Amino acid sequence: MATDWAIKDMKTITIKEHIMVAEQLKQILLEKNVSPAAYYRYDTGCKLAEMEKIADITDYQWGKNDSIILDFGHHGVGYLSFSCAGKGSPQDAPAFLKVKFCEVERELYEESEDYNGWISRGWIQEEWLHLDQLPKAVAMERRYAFRYVKIDILDTSPKFKVAFDHFIFKTVSAVNMETVPLVETQNKMFRKIDEASLRTLQNCMQDVFEDGPKRDRRLWLGDLRLQAMINYHTFKDYNLVKRCLYLFAGMTKDDGMIAACLFTEPKPLMDDTFLLDYSLFFISALLDYYQASKDMETLKQLGPSALRQIELAEQFMNEEMIFEPEGRYHCFVDWNEILHKQCAMQGIYLFTLRDAIQIAELLGDCERVVQLNEKQERCKASALKKFWDEEQQVFISGPDRQISWASQAWMIASGMKQGQEAQELLRRISGCEVGMVTPYMNHVYVQALLDCGGVSEAGAHIRYYWGKMVEEGADTFWELFNPENPEESPYGSSIINSYCHAWSCTPAYFMREYPELL
Amino acid sequence: MATDWAIKDMKTITIKEHIMVAEQLKQILLEKNVSPAAYYRYDTGCKLAEMEKIADITDYQWGKNDSIILDFGHHGVGYLSFSCAGKGSPQDAPAFLKVKFCEVERELYEESEDYNGWISRGWIQEEWLHLDQLPKAVAMERRYAFRYVKIDILDTSPKFKVAFDHFIFKTVSAVNMETVPLVETQNKMFRKIDEASLRTLQNCMQDVFEDGPKRDRRLWLGDLRLQAMINYHTFKDYNLVKRCLYLFAGMTKDDGMIAACLFTEPKPLMDDTFLLDYSLFFISALLDYYQASKDMETLKQLGPSALRQIELAEQFMNEEMIFEPEGRYHCFVDWNEILHKQCAMQGIYLFTLRDAIQIAELLGDCERVVQLNEKQERCKASALKKFWDEEQQVFISGPDRQISWASQAWMIASGMKQGQEAQELLRRISGCEVGMVTPYMNHVYVQALLDCGGVSEAGAHIRYYWGKMVEEGADTFWELFNPENPEESPYGSSIINSYCHAWSCTPAYFMREYPELL
Repeated sequence: MATDWAIKDMKTITIKEHIMVAEQLKQILLEKNVSPAAYYRYDTGCKLAEMEKIADITDYQWGKNDSIILDFGHHGVGYLSFSCAGKGSPQDAPAFLKVKFCEVERELYEESEDYNGWISRGWIQEEWLHLDQLPKAVAMERRYAFRYVKIDILDTSPKFKVAFDHFIFKTVSAVNMETVPLVETQNKMFRKIDEASLRTLQNCMQDVFEDGPKRDRRLWLGDLRLQAMINYHTFKDYNLVKRCLYLFAGMTKDDGMIAACLFTEPKPLMDDTFLLDYSLFFISALLDYYQASKDMETLKQLGPSALRQIELAEQFMNEEMIFEPEGRYHCFVDWNEILHKQCAMQGIYLFTLRDAIQIAELLGDCERVVQLNEKQERCKASALKKFWDEEQQVFISGPDRQISWASQAWMIASGMKQGQEAQELLRRISGCEVGMVTPYMNHVYVQALLDCGGVSEAGAHIRYYWGKMVEEGADTFWELFNPENPEESPYGSSIINSYCHAWSCTPAYFMREYPELL
Repeated sequence: MATDWAIKDMKTITIKEHIMVAEQLKQILLEKNVSPAAYYRYDTGCKLAEMEKIADITDYQWGKNDSIILDFGHHGVGYLSFSCAGKGSPQDAPAFLKVKFCEVERELYEESEDYNGWISRGWIQEEWLHLDQLPKAVAMERRYAFRYVKIDILDTSPKFKVAFDHFIFKTVSAVNMETVPLVETQNKMFRKIDEASLRTLQNCMQDVFEDGPKRDRRLWLGDLRLQAMINYHTFKDYNLVKRCLYLFAGMTKDDGMIAACLFTEPKPLMDDTFLLDYSLFFISALLDYYQASKDMETLKQLGPSALRQIELAEQFMNEEMIFEPEGRYHCFVDWNEILHKQCAMQGIYLFTLRDAIQIAELLGDCERVVQLNEKQERCKASALKKFWDEEQQVFISGPDRQISWASQAWMIASGMKQGQEAQELLRRISGCEVGMVTPYMNHVYVQALLDCGGVSEAGAHIRYYWGKMVEEGADTFWELFNPENPEESPYGSSIINSYCHAWSCTPAYFMREYPELL
C-alpha cells in the first residue's frame, strides 16, 4: 500500500524500552539457494511458452541485443548471483547488461520506460550492469522479489560475446513454508490457494511483516493484523508479531496515535502517514496476538497504547459518536476512489471497540470495561440510526446514500447485523456497483459471510476471487485483483503492481479457522 | 583506437621473465581529491552557460525529473563519491538516479539511447543507481574519465525529495602535471596547447599508458610510442615506459610478432589484433626509451624482440621489398577509410628500419648492421621506384595512384625526401583531398614538416589543428578532430568519442624538442 496522506511537522514520542524489546527480537533470516527451473531465449512479441527453451545455459553465447529469461519455478525474495565469462577475442569493452526481476510473467513484457504513474519508478526491479573484467562472479547487492529474471545483453563488442553460468537465487525469509502442511481437502483448488497463500506470507515475513517484498517492503499496521492471523495458524512465529507490535507502540505521534506504517532500516522510524482504521487495528492485532500466544506480559505492556487509540478516534466524532464532520481524518478501507468510507469507518471503530473491551477485561480494568461498553451501546444505536436505510434494508454512506460492499461487510463484521439477517443483507447487495478492489477488502467480505454463517458463500467467493488468481497463474497472491479485469492497476500501470502482497493471503487463515469451508 | 582485425586461433608465447619485470614495475597511483568548481540546474535545450548556476548545492532539494550538472573545472580520471539525503517525509521508495560522466560539454546533451554505432555502448559512461536507504554515502565503484557529471533524478516519490553534498572526484594518475613547468613562450595559445597536452598525457598515464581513459582504456603500441616521447620531455617516468615495453615483448604471437595492444587487468593478456605498423613501432619505442633513459640492460633484453619485427614484416613483401600483394596484413596509419595505405606503410617500415639499424649498432651486432643497411638501400630504391610519381612530383599509392597526406608525411619522416625538396613536396600537396583524420596522423605531418626544416609551417599547423581544439573548449586533446567539422565521428555517433586521447598530445613534445617553434 502507498499513500500520500502525510502529517506536516509531526511531533513524535519514542518509548525506548519498547524499541529495545523490538530490536532484541530481530531474527536471522533463513536462506535457501534456488537454481533456475528453466531458461528461455527471449523473443519479442512471444509469450514464454512460445519461446525457445534452453537445455544447457553453458552451451550458449550471447551478444548485442540478445535476451535471456530465467524462470526459478516459484516466487521468492532474495539475492541473485551468477557468473559471466567472455567468449571470443579478449574482452575489449565493458559488457553492458540490463537485469530485470519479475514477480509474474506479464512484467517481462512491460517496458519500464513507458511507466509514468505516481508511484516511484524506483520500485521497478531493474538494474544496469557494466562488467569491466570478465570472467566475473556477479553478486547483486539489492534484494528483489521475483520468479523470473530477464537479462538483456545491451552490448558486448564485435570481438566478444558473453556466456553465463551458476545462476543462484538466494532466497530469504523468517520462515519456511515447507514446515507447514497444506490444508487437508479433496478440493484441488483449495490446496492450490493454500499453497499460494503460504508462499505469499512466507515471502513477506522478513525482518518485519512486509506488505509486499517488491513494493513497499515495509510494515503496515492494517496488513500486519491479517498477516499475523494467518501466521498463528501456520508458521506460529509469535516473536515476529511481537517485534512489530512493540515497534508500533514504541514510536507514536505526541498524542499517542499509532502510525499507519513504519520503517526499520537503517533504524526504526515511524512514517508520517496516519490512517484512522489502521491506528485502531492495533487493538485487534494486539488482542489476536494475546489470544494466540497467551503472552500476558506483552498485553500488559502494550494494552494502554491500544486502548488509547479508541480515545483518540473520538476526537473525530460528533456528539452522537458518528465520524463527522468528514475530512478531519484519513482512513484506508479499500483502494476504491468512489467509495464513501464513513459507514465502513464506523464499522471498523465498532469492530475494534469490541476488541478493546476484551483487552480491558483481560487487564482487569473494570472501570474501563464499563465505560467502553457504554460507548459501544451509544455508538451502535447512533450508527444504526445514521447508516441503516429502513426502506432499502441496507447500510448507506454519505449524502448520496451510497450502497457499497465495504459498508455492509464492515457493519456485519462489527456485529451490527448477524445471522440470517446479515446473510440476507449480503445477498441483497450482490448487484451493488460500489465493489471491492483489494484482496484486503475481499477478506472482510469473506469474514462477514463467515460471521453470519454463510459458509458455502464464503467458500464460493474464495474460489471465485483467489481461485481466479490461481487460474491466472498466481504463485503468490497479488496486491490488487479484479477478476473482471485482471490487468487493472490504480497506479497508472501494472508494472508497479506488487504480486506478492500479504494482505491477499488470508484464505490460509479462513481454511484453518473454519474447516467447514473445506 | 578500436579495431575488428583479429587473428583466429592465435598461438602465443609468453616470456615469463619479461612479464615479471613488468609486474614489478607496477606503481601506486597518485590520488587527488577535487571538488566541483560549479553546479548548474539542468535545463533541456540550453547550453551550460545559459543554465541556472547554483551557489550552494546544500540549499537545494531535487525531485522527479530534475537534473543537476557538476563541473569539476578540468578533465580528470578517477572515482566519484557524494552523499545523498532524503528531504520531506520518511523515504518511502528507492531514490532512482542516473549518473552520466562527460569529458566534454557536448556529451551532456547526447542521449545514449540514440547511440547505435559499432563500438560497444558499454563505453558510454553512465550508471543507474537505486538508493534504498537515505542518507547514503555513495562511492561509485567504476573509474570514469570526466570533467562534467549529469545527475538525473529519475524518481523519488511524492513524499520525499533528495539533497546532495560532498561531491568528491578522486582523481588518479601515475604522474602530476603540476610538477612540470609549461613551455616558456609569449604565445598564449602555445601555452594553452601545452597545458591541454600535459593534462591529456597525465590522465592517460595510469597502470600503463592508456590510449584514452574513457575508451579503450588500454595499452596500444602505436600510441605508446608517442606518449613515451612526450613523457621523456615532461614527466620523465621511465619505469612506466619500461613496464609497457616488457609487457609487449613478454607476450607475442608464436612467431614473435608483437601485438597491437594488450590488457593488464586482471592479469596481462595480449590482444589478438595485429597491425603491422604498430608491431614495427616497438623498434622505435625501444630506441627512444634507450636514448632517453640510457638503460642498456633493457635494450639488451628487448633488442632481439625489436629486431625480430623487421624480419617478420618481410613476409608481407615481394622480392623488391614492397608490401605486396596487399590484404595479407593489416595496418592502421590513420582513421581514414578512403586512405590507400601501401605507400605510408612502406614509409613506416623505412622509418623503423632506420631505428632498427641504430639498435643493432648499439648492441654491437655488426653483422646485423651490415645486413639491415643493405636492406635499407634496396628498399629505398624500390620504394622510390614504386611510389614516386616523377611527373606529378608526389608519392602515390595504389592502382588509382592516390595522393594523400599520409603517404607524403611518412615518406618524408622516413627520410625518403629531405630538406628543401621535402618542404616543396608538402607545399605541393596542400590542396590534397585525402586528408588526415586523427591527431595521431597530424603528428606525423608536423614531424615531417620539422624534419625538413618547415618550422613556421609546423607551428602554424599546431595552432591551426590543436589550437582549434582549444578554441572549441578542449581541456584535454581529443581522439579525433576535423577542424572543418568538429562533430565528426567514425563511430556512428560522437557520444562514443574519446576526448582525452594520448596520441593527440604531442605538441608538448614538439615544443620542447624544437624550441625554435616557440
